[in-house]
Formats: sequence, C-alpha cells, structure tokens
Amino acid sequence: MIIGLIGFGKVSQNLLKLIKSDNITFITSKENRSAGTMEKIDDAEIEVLDTFREVAEKSDILISANSPKQALEVAQKYAKLTGGIFVDLNNVSPDTTQKISELADDFVDAAIIGKIDSPNPVLYLSGKSAFKLKFLDEFIKTVIISDKIGDASILKMLRSTYTKTLSAVLIESYELSKKYGLENEFFDTLSLTEGDEFREKSLSRIQNTCGSSKRKSEELEEIIDYFDDDLIMVEAALEKLRRY
Amino acid sequence: MIIGLIGFGKVSQNLLKLIKSDNITFITSKENRSAGTMEKIDDAEIEVLDTFREVAEKSDILISANSPKQALEVAQKYAKLTGGIFVDLNNVSPDTTQKISELADDFVDAAIIGKIDSPNPVLYLSGKSAFKLKFLDEFIKTVIISDKIGDASILKMLRSTYTKTLSAVLIESYELSKKYGLENEFFDTLSLTEGDEFREKSLSRIQNTCGSSKRKSEELEEIIDYFDDDLIMVEAALEKLRRY
Repeated sequence: MIIGLIGFGKVSQNLLKLIKSDNITFITSKENRSAGTMEKIDDAEIEVLDTFREVAEKSDILISANSPKQALEVAQKYAKLTGGIFVDLNNVSPDTTQKISELADDFVDAAIIGKIDSPNPVLYLSGKSAFKLKFLDEFIKTVIISDKIGDASILKMLRSTYTKTLSAVLIESYELSKKYGLENEFFDTLSLTEGDEFREKSLSRIQNTCGSSKRKSEELEEIIDYFDDDLIMVEAALEKLRRY
Repeated sequence: MIIGLIGFGKVSQNLLKLIKSDNITFITSKENRSAGTMEKIDDAEIEVLDTFREVAEKSDILISANSPKQALEVAQKYAKLTGGIFVDLNNVSPDTTQKISELADDFVDAAIIGKIDSPNPVLYLSGKSAFKLKFLDEFIKTVIISDKIGDASILKMLRSTYTKTLSAVLIESYELSKKYGLENEFFDTLSLTEGDEFREKSLSRIQNTCGSSKRKSEELEEIIDYFDDDLIMVEAALEKLRRY
C-alpha cells in the first residue's frame, strides 16, 4: 500500500514515525518546498517523486496535511488525481471539509485529537470509506465515528468549543484571584477536585491563550459562525479574548 | 480544651468523627433543635448542655455551623458570650463574614474546601488568631492563609466562581454536542486531556447545576455583587443558568 503525503510538517513527520510497516510505502515530493522542508524530507524514510501530481496518482491513500489556509487549494489541485482515498488532516472547519469532500471521488474526514507528538494522539474518522482506514489502528489509535462526512471535523470543533471557553473562564477567575493575592490558594483549592496537575495545566492554557489571543478569537468566531446557535458562554469567551 | 458546636448538621457531625483526642471535649445543646437533630446528638459522642448560652460560655472554641441564613443571627446571639475563639463555618459571603467578625472578641474566618465527608477536606483559615487553630491539622488538613479576616471566605468564593462558571461551559458545549449526536465522542476526546473521570464528573456537574439552577443563579449573583468587577464569563454563566 502506498500512502502519499502532501505537506511535510509535524503531522506528516509524526505519521511517518508512528506508521511503520513492510506493507506500507510513504511517498511525497519536494516540489515547491522550502529548503527546511526539503532537509526534513531527506532525513526521513520516504520515497521522493518529482511532482505532487505523481504522488497523487500513485497513492492508495493521499493525505493532505498542510495549513488550514492551503487545504482547499491542495484539494482542488490533487483530490481528483488520486484513484485512492483522499484524507484531509488539516484543522479546517466542517464547512471546508464539506467542500473538500466534494472535490474527491473517495473522501474520509479525519481529525487528530490531542497533539500528534503527544503520547496518545487519537485519529477520529468519519465518512462511508472510513472503515478502509481502520487498519491504521495498529499504529495510532483510530476511532470511526460515523459514515457522515463532517462528523470528525464537527467533533474537533466541539472539543475546541469547550477548551477555548474554559480558557476564558480560567483567565477571568485567575485574574480575580490575583487581585486578592490568593492565586496560589486558588489553584490549591481547585487541585483538590480537579487533579494535581490543575495549576500547571491551567497556567499553560492561560499563557497559550493570552499569547495568541488574536488567533484564538478568530477560532471562536469560526465556532460561533459554524454552529449558529445561542452560545452565550462562547460569545462571552470571544468578548473576553478580544480584550487581550 | 472544649469545642462548642452550634448547629449539628453534616459539618458538625463530621468534625466529631475527624477530631478525636483525649484532650478535646465537644459540647452542644438540644435547645430548640428538631427531633431528628436531637436523635443525632444522642448517637454522637458529645456532651449536651441545657442551652447554647452555656455552650458559648464554656467553649474555648465556639464553632457556628448552621445554614448561611442563620449565620448572622447565631453570631449576634452567641459570639459575645464566649471567652474563646468564635469560628464561622457557614457558607457565607465575605461581607457577612466581616459583619460576624465584628460581633466577636476573637474571630477566625474558616472555610472547608471539598465536601466535609469527602476523603480529603481541607480547612482554610484566616485572621490574626488563625494560628491558634493550627493544632486541628492533626485531624483535618488545616491551612492558614493570612491574618486577614475575609481571605478564607474570599477564597471559597473564588473557587466557586471557577466551578460554577465551568458548569455553565459544560452545559453549553455538552448540549451542542448532543445536537450533533456526538456527546459520547465529545467526552471521549476531552478525556484524553482532562483525565479519565471527565465524563462522570462533568455529567454530575451538569445534573447538579441544572437540578438547582435557581440556587446556583443566586450564588452567581452574590459573586457578581461581591467582586464588583468586569466578570464577563460569570455574567454569561448567570444568563445561561437563568434559562434553566
């Protein structure tokens, strides 16, 4: 089986590390890649073809793992060229996933939950052909949600709805506790019920969110746009982040 | 040493179980108590005096553990009568704590964090005399925050600010996930980072909050009133709960 990778960032690099089998050959191309990426490709165990067109044509499974912004363009260029399954692993909205799915003959909606280089990433799949990728479970925990294109992307967005809104709650209550000089005790009392790692995890979330509040705000806007529901807490989180 | 208990609910009953020492005698009274409470007093290892006035007069430490509504009245009646330390263990606001402290000659602000009958309740204390209660650490984990009356109550409120707002976030994102039939996967994906007990804990929080949304709303109102800050997330949580 041949798996083609379009994009050679963290996701592709880690997939290569996770999926090791005599029956699987990975292919990619250096076409229009940066010097840095080319070096990484050289260091990896992967076959290199001249063009992504060739990669697409030869792949049984063609994985697009680029930036969210390039996802649609990559699909427009290569999805039709593959006789295999086109898999989008970019962090795109369910709407974009829908558009991309219409460009491919055979499409699987996929979302990696948890960081790809964490000890326990999980690959969530949806779509009628998702079962064809179930063999990946041998290498990375793989869960098939349903045969509906969109479910994997929606799930990722639901998770993100919770974590981003939670961050806004953390920011607000942590700052309030600092105002009273009780931030250490605040974490201590919460660790009793939220677990020993609560302080470390929360501070990292707060820092992460405040450090990229513009991007996080945009993601919250996407969530509000997509779900089009009465999301009081998410809207408040957006309002909160806009002030940072 | 004599510890007097005004109120004989869950807190007092559990303090009796936790604090076992040959040097400590507990006293209380059946004055104006319900039949049920009297029975519980009969079953406990505690000395019973005729009146709470006598309890107050004889106590080295006089603990008020009633309902939040009765806290101020109890303090008005008995705080002045004790030559010992008056300790308020009711779940009252920092403002009420302040008022109560002014009624006693020697006062310690105290808050139990975590349920008193849980495996690891912690007693947080503040006030100049807090150190006089440090010996309780032998029986229940006891932390002295500062010598400021109010800090223990404020800490309890800060904790509650976080947990109640979090519940509103949980309700919103869980309901959204149900709308898409992805509630199980929603919990699964979050358990990856939030811990194995995330589902159980969250469902219990959601149920608990929705089942007493009126009381929780009132508590959120108290939080907003007390802190008098720009609490976007807390106000959104109040708005959310008002709809239940």
